[in-house]
Amino acid sequence: MTTDTPMVVDQLNLFIRQAISSWESQNKRINSLLETLTETEWHGATAPGRNSGKYLLGHLIAVNDGMLTLLGVGDRMFAELDEPYVKKAEDAAALNSSIEELKSYWQRLNTELSRHFNAMTADDWFTGHTAVSPEDFAKEPHRNKMNILLSRTIHQGYHLGQLVYLLKKK
Amino acid sequence: MTTDTPMVVDQLNLFIRQAISSWESQNKRINSLLETLTETEWHGATAPGRNSGKYLLGHLIAVNDGMLTLLGVGDRMFAELDEPYVKKAEDAAALNSSIEELKSYWQRLNTELSRHFNAMTADDWFTGHTAVSPEDFAKEPHRNKMNILLSRTIHQGYHLGQLVYLLKKK
Repeated sequence: MTTDTPMVVDQLNLFIRQAISSWESQNKRINSLLETLTETEWHGATAPGRNSGKYLLGHLIAVNDGMLTLLGVGDRMFAELDEPYVKKAEDAAALNSSIEELKSYWQRLNTELSRHFNAMTADDWFTGHTAVSPEDFAKEPHRNKMNILLSRTIHQGYHLGQLVYLLKKK
Repeated sequence: MTTDTPMVVDQLNLFIRQAISSWESQNKRINSLLETLTETEWHGATAPGRNSGKYLLGHLIAVNDGMLTLLGVGDRMFAELDEPYVKKAEDAAALNSSIEELKSYWQRLNTELSRHFNAMTADDWFTGHTAVSPEDFAKEPHRNKMNILLSRTIHQGYHLGQLVYLLKKK
């Protein structure tokens, strides 16, 4: 039987902390935009004919909110945002929420997600996410909860790259 | 003395494979843009007054090329791209390379990086990157090579979010 040195456990836990920290650093960059941009600027398009800042903010909230169920840690907080901000394109959607409401949702959601992330054990992160069947997970062990965290972190970075176009050019 | 089940080693190795795979999936999305967009489209701005596709492609090559030295696996392949694509803003830079050249650099670099990533052991990923001093690394163990991989993956996603604006609107 193979036995590992304690170092392996330390490495694994460090790695998980780094993945959470990568997530949090994307959050912070979006928080910084929330502090900087005016409500009018959030309503503007990130580029001509492209999504508005408001749509992308609602989109990030809706997609990130879905992590609560994918990770199996709780119920959706803002499932009503899926229809306007994920299922529909911006020009077809009724974006009822105000920027102030979205800001508040964003902060509440991130507090909740961080709490869950930090409570999860290494074993938790390596179990299948809730949208993969046990049969498929047995064949594809990378479809675990860590994969959700990594992919959603990159997804935040992707839209952050677009949101920075709302900032005035220097 | 603590001993771990083999599962911890498996989890650690799976985690590393997932991080590499996240990197590769960003590469593939940029490869797909390279196949889709014309040379003229690459020369266009991603949004009015913002960086061109060409500048962002050169920027990604230069930044990713820096991983060779940060990971301590080899010499820079395209260090000459730093000056025009990283140190200088686009309007001040002489972007001498053609899109065809940049495409070729991109592919050669990714082949080289993938080869090194797949040859690195778990212990390698947890050593300090070459820009952190041993003293600082002792205090901040997250400044390891894995951190370079995670942060550069998100960096690719960030600029990919901008590069997709080169695609025609549907």
